[in-house]
Amino acid sequence: MQEVKALLFDVFGTLVDWRTSIARETRGALSPRGISIDWEHFADAWRGQYQGAMDEVRSGRIAFCRLDVLHRRNLDIVLKDLALDHVDEATRLHLNLAWHRLDAWPDVASGLARLRTRFLVAPCSNGNISLMVDLARRNGWHWDAILGAEIARDYKPKPGVYVASAAALDLVPAQAMMVAAHSSDLAAAAAAGLRTAFIARANEYGAGHGETAPSVPVDLCAGSLVELAAQLGCG
Amino acid sequence: MQEVKALLFDVFGTLVDWRTSIARETRGALSPRGISIDWEHFADAWRGQYQGAMDEVRSGRIAFCRLDVLHRRNLDIVLKDLALDHVDEATRLHLNLAWHRLDAWPDVASGLARLRTRFLVAPCSNGNISLMVDLARRNGWHWDAILGAEIARDYKPKPGVYVASAAALDLVPAQAMMVAAHSSDLAAAAAAGLRTAFIARANEYGAGHGETAPSVPVDLCAGSLVELAAQLGCG
Repeated sequence: MQEVKALLFDVFGTLVDWRTSIARETRGALSPRGISIDWEHFADAWRGQYQGAMDEVRSGRIAFCRLDVLHRRNLDIVLKDLALDHVDEATRLHLNLAWHRLDAWPDVASGLARLRTRFLVAPCSNGNISLMVDLARRNGWHWDAILGAEIARDYKPKPGVYVASAAALDLVPAQAMMVAAHSSDLAAAAAAGLRTAFIARANEYGAGHGETAPSVPVDLCAGSLVELAAQLGCG
Repeated sequence: MQEVKALLFDVFGTLVDWRTSIARETRGALSPRGISIDWEHFADAWRGQYQGAMDEVRSGRIAFCRLDVLHRRNLDIVLKDLALDHVDEATRLHLNLAWHRLDAWPDVASGLARLRTRFLVAPCSNGNISLMVDLARRNGWHWDAILGAEIARDYKPKPGVYVASAAALDLVPAQAMMVAAHSSDLAAAAAAGLRTAFIARANEYGAGHGETAPSVPVDLCAGSLVELAAQLGCG
């Protein structure tokens, strides 16, 4: 068994509570304009367009473009669906960057700092580099590098994204461990040769709506990054 | 004038004393094998192959490959030139990673930490991501992202490398400032639309052999990163 040298992290859902943050940001941007809707529903609707938009890239139907670009297309769709076509361009531009202003789950900053004492740490997210940089600044994370979709120019769960992220650190897949709250992400990482760690995020889609246990075989399973750090001998 | 949001750093020569470090690493690897040469000369000879190797990529004669790959080709050339063909493969593999074990000039860690309080900071180096990650770990730097040649898939001073590095942070070139100890690097960055800061490294190529003043117009000029931080109002 190869020694694991790096931990690669999923971000949306695993490290940050996108749903609460997007609801807050959307309310902040739209309620001053007289709009009153279910903000959590808005967050779910926006996120609901996520996989379909990336499928356009994964399938090769459109060239790779950064997640900020896909988020904007998805935002326009959701505003139209909710009969909010009158929201102006400046508001849309501001709102689209809501994904750069997501808050972390409470265990992440301290857990990541502990894990970094023994491993290289990098996001392997579908988010673009600037989005990852902004989330790291906001939440006090110290990444060794920003890896993932933008350097691989494709979207997870395509195997090349995991392999390219490990390779950027001079590692073969078995020397990297993917850390995620989603079984689908971990299944794809394992198929690409990576080790896997599941983090339970029971409230990702609202109270009691999130994966509490993996539905696929994984190497490690923890309730938080702090717990993962303990399992990996990082204090 | 656009506000500068990010500082992009040249690394070899500007942040690290590659010559002293490579001489030390080469001596450490080869002298136990009974080899006794001028180690600084070896470092200069290896570095002397640098621009020519990258020209193969810049010109399109060969596809982009990471600097570790070019360093290895160059090492083989230098060993042959110095009649050291008998150096074995394991030693060559270890020696090639000497570029991952370079020591910083003494002002860099504290200067970079101060600059990071007001700016995004990232390397825009011809070194590959894993090389940059290893240098950051060794020298205690906190980058926001690793940018430069590997994400642009070309080598400085090609303008696309500077522009792609700024763009990865969602910035137009004028919102980024290139920091380097080499006038040629800064001239190319300025031509690509970036702001520029010159750092004097008087001893890069040995005592008294380094650029002490820029030979091209620059926006700022400093004797160290700490001095640059003061000029930019970062304490």
